[in-house]
Amino acid sequence: MQLLKERIKKEGRIVSGQILKVDSFLNHQIDIDLYNEIGKEFKMLFSDVPVTKILTIESSGIGIACITAQYFGVPVVFAKKAKSKNIDGEVLTSRVDSYTYEKSYEIMVSSKFIKPEDKILIIDDFLAKGKAIIGLNNIVNSAGASVSGVGIVIEKGFQEGGNIIRQMGLNLHSLAVLDKIEENGDIVFK
Amino acid sequence: MQLLKERIKKEGRIVSGQILKVDSFLNHQIDIDLYNEIGKEFKMLFSDVPVTKILTIESSGIGIACITAQYFGVPVVFAKKAKSKNIDGEVLTSRVDSYTYEKSYEIMVSSKFIKPEDKILIIDDFLAKGKAIIGLNNIVNSAGASVSGVGIVIEKGFQEGGNIIRQMGLNLHSLAVLDKIEENGDIVFK
Repeated sequence: MQLLKERIKKEGRIVSGQILKVDSFLNHQIDIDLYNEIGKEFKMLFSDVPVTKILTIESSGIGIACITAQYFGVPVVFAKKAKSKNIDGEVLTSRVDSYTYEKSYEIMVSSKFIKPEDKILIIDDFLAKGKAIIGLNNIVNSAGASVSGVGIVIEKGFQEGGNIIRQMGLNLHSLAVLDKIEENGDIVFK
Repeated sequence: MQLLKERIKKEGRIVSGQILKVDSFLNHQIDIDLYNEIGKEFKMLFSDVPVTKILTIESSGIGIACITAQYFGVPVVFAKKAKSKNIDGEVLTSRVDSYTYEKSYEIMVSSKFIKPEDKILIIDDFLAKGKAIIGLNNIVNSAGASVSGVGIVIEKGFQEGGNIIRQMGLNLHSLAVLDKIEENGDIVFK
């Protein structure tokens, strides 16, 4: 997605060598016009598969999932990371090791909201080691439902997540795949 | 907002006497059509004040803020609850006591994204004791910016948050104000 790649090149910042920060438009401050272009792109890429619900994970996937859902005409469900009073009853869970937060955590979805007949499109902002997507896929499987596709905004192509997800046979589309970050900080896409 | 109140009466569930759960359409599974009606209502209610950015807090405010921002044509900024690699540089912080999570936590916004000239509309899903809104208001004030309004989807009118926020002189609009929850579980609106 050319518009996204241009935006990453223009506003993305590299910190600590390998961490791409896109907080001015994607995951802290949010450019809603860009989110709409992302939503349209996902609709085009997944136009040939059935989608009854979009599943994402808190927090930075939620906004992208909501704007994207407008183009599919389906509800969003977001997996929660911490047990609170706001989730009760029977839950589907999976454990995720987080690269960003350097800890592992449980993700959970109320079993009411994913049924065996659901065709799920998983949406998230980043794909690095693939742990969050594997956790979401586990939750969909444990509900007896199926994953129609996985839509990622930015895939870090130099980490293993993309290969793992593709080898699992999941229908993955990433809107921008980073090939490498040069020593001078230049971002190269695949 | 009549549509919202009808939906709360139809699908809201009361647990432990005082906790209203609206997880089938508002904050776990999300009805995007309802979010759009909420966004239009906020635009109508705040049409007479300047708004340059919408500020919310992760996680359940993000989707509402993103859909609402489409009607204002402004970016969204969401406050983060945990220090991660995804936030760096100078940050604006405030401490919040959470009713839902029974603990206190720091919320933070990168100082790059709220400037003195900004006119901020704060959006959140629930207002109970008002702690999150006070924290967001503190962050806006510490940036030297001003709060044009506070838009809440569901205000628990039997808790003190609404009065506190109004007494602070903030321009608060709540789309549904709960008056009380009857012993039989009936929900009464103000």
